[in-house]
Amino acid sequence: MLNFTLTMQKKPLILVTNDDGITAPGIRTLINIMKTIGDVVVVAPDSPQSGMGHAITVDSTLHCDKVSKNNAEIIEYSCSGTPADCVKLAVHEILDRRPDLCVSGINHGSNSSINVIYSGTMSAAIEAGIEGIPAIGFSLLDYNWDADFSQIEDYIKTIVINLLSSGLPNDVVLNVNFPKLKKENIKGIKVCRQAKGNWVEDFDKRVSPMGKDYYWLSGKFVSSDKGEDTDIWALENGYVSLVPCQFDLTAHHTLQKLNTWKLND
Amino acid sequence: MLNFTLTMQKKPLILVTNDDGITAPGIRTLINIMKTIGDVVVVAPDSPQSGMGHAITVDSTLHCDKVSKNNAEIIEYSCSGTPADCVKLAVHEILDRRPDLCVSGINHGSNSSINVIYSGTMSAAIEAGIEGIPAIGFSLLDYNWDADFSQIEDYIKTIVINLLSSGLPNDVVLNVNFPKLKKENIKGIKVCRQAKGNWVEDFDKRVSPMGKDYYWLSGKFVSSDKGEDTDIWALENGYVSLVPCQFDLTAHHTLQKLNTWKLND
Repeated sequence: MLNFTLTMQKKPLILVTNDDGITAPGIRTLINIMKTIGDVVVVAPDSPQSGMGHAITVDSTLHCDKVSKNNAEIIEYSCSGTPADCVKLAVHEILDRRPDLCVSGINHGSNSSINVIYSGTMSAAIEAGIEGIPAIGFSLLDYNWDADFSQIEDYIKTIVINLLSSGLPNDVVLNVNFPKLKKENIKGIKVCRQAKGNWVEDFDKRVSPMGKDYYWLSGKFVSSDKGEDTDIWALENGYVSLVPCQFDLTAHHTLQKLNTWKLND
Repeated sequence: MLNFTLTMQKKPLILVTNDDGITAPGIRTLINIMKTIGDVVVVAPDSPQSGMGHAITVDSTLHCDKVSKNNAEIIEYSCSGTPADCVKLAVHEILDRRPDLCVSGINHGSNSSINVIYSGTMSAAIEAGIEGIPAIGFSLLDYNWDADFSQIEDYIKTIVINLLSSGLPNDVVLNVNFPKLKKENIKGIKVCRQAKGNWVEDFDKRVSPMGKDYYWLSGKFVSSDKGEDTDIWALENGYVSLVPCQFDLTAHHTLQKLNTWKLND
């Protein structure tokens, strides 16, 4: 592990957020790890925001309350908005200087493959990235509220210290997923691409007491991507997956083909 | 314009959705254009969903009601969920065959540049793309509910017919934005890349009658991207912008650099 603290003038300011809500065990673990590395400010949703994608609050008001005591070691704010709202509020209203890093998570559940698109955890990291702040989303493949996050603490520290030492390429944030394994069974960290995959929905259709149909979104993740360079492969084979994500969605490789369309005849 | 109808065995099935809600003038225009091209089914949110990004409803139930009469020309469903929910429900519960195309919009307001990330309109198109269905999101740079969509009808038709004739590259959907101009002043359609840009937030902080602080999200879009190949440039110079968007977020160009990190020492 690089000796980061020796080379910095002052401790880095780290913004911590998530999408499971400020009381979730995952964010409590992440806060504890980050306070060994830098000065920590928490701005996180007051309630679970899973599946919120990159939602922002445009048609409603936002509330943000300081929930830490005045003499607390860590300053914490609880916010009524989405994960992306939390980052916007933190950067433009709460913090008195730009954070050196934004970490989001640790999410209770996977954000590998296409899940990155639906992920509130990653939307916070991407929002920070758009603001030009280095950012990482962390997720553990264990939906259990009692998930054992202690197995992955050293890996998180290693990744954060590498980022603070080396910096990230412009307009890129990291999506890190951890397999549900004992520490001794984790083989290491693998830099990956996002596996191709999707959810095959199987809506659970029910009837209300008033006789009205309603649905629960349900489904199964499927991937036909056999590549050994993907996040899915890494996680299934005992590795921590690290995928660099961009928010320029342009499919540059298709521009030439689209220019053959008869758009202006 | 290509003579699409002559080459197809049967009329294409077109799924229409949006994020401004099923009653918005933008979607009513889009429905009227699409019914000249194919068989149309509408599955759209029952209320405005702007800024919902790629949110999906995982912690709550979904309602979906047929709102068209039995003998109506177009079958329409109003859904309690997000734009992405609408597409999932349409494809897996409502339609009896896979649509040949999904169109989303016409959005009242811009989804160019980084707005694509926050856009409910584009999340519907991207959800369809993930399902393997060709898809386009349409947006007009006019937030007015009384915006004049008649100026852009022929352009929408041209783009849809090109897509149905030529097909789209795999895992790509189209983000089409229209300048707020009279038809005679629109110079044509330009294939573009997403301009680099972001919102600089300026939260409007207020105090409630109970003495509690709250915020309205506000802000200004800024772009330092001077490229003449961007959607922002096209729109500012009188063109319709067409950006191919992908949902593999991997920043492939950075994998090599990240592999130099000391992650497994």
